[in-house]
Amino acid sequence: MNPIDRYNQRSKRIDSLLCVGLDADFEKLPEKFKSLEFPQFEFNKWIIEETHECTAAYKPNIAFYEARGEKGMAELKMTMDFLNKNYPDIFTICDAKRADIGNTNNGYVASIFDWLGFDAITLHPYLGKEALLPFLDKSDKCSIILCRTSNPGAPEFQDLKVDGSPLWQIVAEKVSKDWNKNNNCMLVVGATYPEEMKEIRSLVGDMTFLVPGIGAQGGDLQQVLKAGLNSEGLGLIINSARGIIFSESPKKEAQKLCEEIRKYKAI
Amino acid sequence: MNPIDRYNQRSKRIDSLLCVGLDADFEKLPEKFKSLEFPQFEFNKWIIEETHECTAAYKPNIAFYEARGEKGMAELKMTMDFLNKNYPDIFTICDAKRADIGNTNNGYVASIFDWLGFDAITLHPYLGKEALLPFLDKSDKCSIILCRTSNPGAPEFQDLKVDGSPLWQIVAEKVSKDWNKNNNCMLVVGATYPEEMKEIRSLVGDMTFLVPGIGAQGGDLQQVLKAGLNSEGLGLIINSARGIIFSESPKKEAQKLCEEIRKYKAI
Repeated sequence: MNPIDRYNQRSKRIDSLLCVGLDADFEKLPEKFKSLEFPQFEFNKWIIEETHECTAAYKPNIAFYEARGEKGMAELKMTMDFLNKNYPDIFTICDAKRADIGNTNNGYVASIFDWLGFDAITLHPYLGKEALLPFLDKSDKCSIILCRTSNPGAPEFQDLKVDGSPLWQIVAEKVSKDWNKNNNCMLVVGATYPEEMKEIRSLVGDMTFLVPGIGAQGGDLQQVLKAGLNSEGLGLIINSARGIIFSESPKKEAQKLCEEIRKYKAI
Repeated sequence: MNPIDRYNQRSKRIDSLLCVGLDADFEKLPEKFKSLEFPQFEFNKWIIEETHECTAAYKPNIAFYEARGEKGMAELKMTMDFLNKNYPDIFTICDAKRADIGNTNNGYVASIFDWLGFDAITLHPYLGKEALLPFLDKSDKCSIILCRTSNPGAPEFQDLKVDGSPLWQIVAEKVSKDWNKNNNCMLVVGATYPEEMKEIRSLVGDMTFLVPGIGAQGGDLQQVLKAGLNSEGLGLIINSARGIIFSESPKKEAQKLCEEIRKYKAI
């Protein structure tokens, strides 16, 4: 199945655009998990059980697992096996921000798609389409290209003007018009830049955006939905990590955010 | 010690600019290694023993290890422990092409510098300096920023003109003038673009370049040395992977390339 259809099906079935960021930073785990044999896995399993009903996608950032070396990688694999077995219709994104040249990317394809079993990966655009073909050619997997990132320093390169257009706009146009032959590309567009999101929406039609930056980073949910929904009332994957997983009640926080998304979607 | 001084010391002591790429692609390993318990580690150990005398730096591309999941990561760790114990003065580069936002990069710092014990990491520039501070602030570790990559599709973004200058030039200028406060930055400049290398050398003074693309990718060694050596006759880390590690005699190929570098350096 086309991976974007896969996300849309899940999203429509549960009426949610919520993505929970499984950023299981070991240092921030509740004490009761830290002493377990598989702390990151057990924490993730708990978060998934608490939040899956209103969650359209899960997005672990792989850096939090690599930080613990082979042990962390094994626990990310356990997390993905648990997810794919118990909740096979939930979309899964590996926030890995990879991109190497040509065949070297086959190693990441093997790791993130084949071994870990993710539906999607985030990618840097700097090496160009030719370098990223090992990802783009996987028509059943989704390549999510960094376009306008949510960090305060994003403008340093992304706002540079190329023939009058900012670089993020060039990325959006290249990806939508040239890289997306298999209809399996998405863009990363940070919640902290709603004006840019609006422009990107007008440039790329109904493409789906992965939207980090809600919550701790300061992105405004209502503005994001206004700027980013596509013509079908979809086209967004709204990620929240810390604000949900390290809250008093991940279940309540996830439900609350899901409800807010529904409310603003309906406006 | 400053990491670039560390590389220069090794380089001067053995009169070599050679970096051997430990790209231990499992599928390409000689059959006798494939059946061992730790095939990538045993292969790397053999390559290191054969080549260390004329090698100034080793550079595993982490994608080849991640491809084998936690097993591959464990063997990369074994490789690094072996290197750091037996050849502690050889410079080590993790070709990981990472870059996430802000604190998330701490996971990669923990993984690649603290756990694996590398001296240096390769990084994408697209998120800007602010995002990369967790790497740049490590004054004893080296950040190697992708500037002009060796792949045929590199021009798609890197040649885009910003106020008349190609994007790779903007990267070179930003890194050399603003990001390099700790004197711990290098640039990736592919051997396949010697004209660009010459221009970058004229822009950034004596900064060191990591140079992939010699050999299988078609870069010309003599042109590279002519274009890239700095005022001290240093400033280059010339990487070769497949051409050495999968040759009939890695020892002879490494010596041969090292001799060629010495010869062209002297011209």
